[in-house]
Amino acid sequence: MKYAILASTSTLHGQDYLEYLLPEIKRLYKEASEVIFIPFARPGGISLNEYTQKAGDAFKMANIDLKGIHEFENPQEALKNAKGIFTGGGNTFILVSELYRRKLMQPLKDAIMAGTPYLGTSAGSNIAGLTMQTTNDMPIVHPPSFKTLGIIPFNINPHYLDPDQNSTHKGETRETRIKEFHSINSQPVVGLREGSWLEISNNKISLKGELSARIFKKDQLPYELDANSTLTDLS
Amino acid sequence: MKYAILASTSTLHGQDYLEYLLPEIKRLYKEASEVIFIPFARPGGISLNEYTQKAGDAFKMANIDLKGIHEFENPQEALKNAKGIFTGGGNTFILVSELYRRKLMQPLKDAIMAGTPYLGTSAGSNIAGLTMQTTNDMPIVHPPSFKTLGIIPFNINPHYLDPDQNSTHKGETRETRIKEFHSINSQPVVGLREGSWLEISNNKISLKGELSARIFKKDQLPYELDANSTLTDLS
Repeated sequence: MKYAILASTSTLHGQDYLEYLLPEIKRLYKEASEVIFIPFARPGGISLNEYTQKAGDAFKMANIDLKGIHEFENPQEALKNAKGIFTGGGNTFILVSELYRRKLMQPLKDAIMAGTPYLGTSAGSNIAGLTMQTTNDMPIVHPPSFKTLGIIPFNINPHYLDPDQNSTHKGETRETRIKEFHSINSQPVVGLREGSWLEISNNKISLKGELSARIFKKDQLPYELDANSTLTDLS
Repeated sequence: MKYAILASTSTLHGQDYLEYLLPEIKRLYKEASEVIFIPFARPGGISLNEYTQKAGDAFKMANIDLKGIHEFENPQEALKNAKGIFTGGGNTFILVSELYRRKLMQPLKDAIMAGTPYLGTSAGSNIAGLTMQTTNDMPIVHPPSFKTLGIIPFNINPHYLDPDQNSTHKGETRETRIKEFHSINSQPVVGLREGSWLEISNNKISLKGELSARIFKKDQLPYELDANSTLTDLS
């Protein structure tokens, strides 16, 4: 059994950090008074403590205490005993590098597979896929591997952005980038628009939020998947 | 002595592939009737031959024959003897992976440092910097290193895109991503807008095209550098 919320973004336009996810947070962590926060993605390069403070302030709205994983003497043991885990967004390369360097990738996977409720936003959702190779982030550090948790049998592209038909910019569109990914790799990619999230409940994977998601499979035309659909068989 | 054109993009909106760069191509390769093409970045996942054909068609407009590096039996020797080299854009991760796998990174650097005229567009420009870590591309493969040619003493961010003040999208802006890069790395980054290129002539580095470039230094506010300015001392 697995219980997770994998959100495309932490923050909707015009809202506070995590505001739109508060009902989900309350439901996901209903039996947890303390949740462990994984702050390694350090958005904008802020410090681990600053980031933990920011996330902790939002979690107070749900009456949940947040404690940074970096504050524990034995972080592996802390993950094993955690009542809930939240990995925040930022840069996926530094997040994955730190999880490997601190030997936390496998303990994190073990905890989630054992049923510890997990919330990921952006980079924190990306790492729930088979690999981090459909991230939008810059490779600011060189991780030993791009393999990630594999809690879901496909990859996520968070902050999925439709091509802007009016743009004169000639940088690759997101769709072109994912096509390049599929020239080398075979797993499906779920383009998760902002405001969308995947809900994993007892191994069933559903698309939540109001928007459809864009599904990319190797050598096939991409297609739209409606909100509230099931993705359990996507692999 | 070094002679290179490092362009942000291969193609301007509404133009043909390499069209705006044709005068520069003619000048750069004025003594070369054949140029070697490095097609490994494979934009959109097209094949090495398809990409070489496309670039070759454009080079015919300048009366220059293009031959793909993958067509040579001894590509190291081919780079050493080349009269000119062009690396096309696409995915920087696969470009760098292939240059390492085929043991071509050092021979390519040696050839350029010895004065072989070099043209890079997009990913082909990115690899002229100290590292590829300010690419916008997806990590579709895992290169053994992010270190690149280091023909210039800083990094390039091609297709540099100013923040869209009207956007409601909450993915990181380019500026935020480069700030994350500088939380770990110290070299300057030149945000090269589309239509801009760096010209390296006898070791002098100049910004060409009509637009200014955005310069990012660690722990400093970014600033604009006017077209036709010199960047030789930027490091």
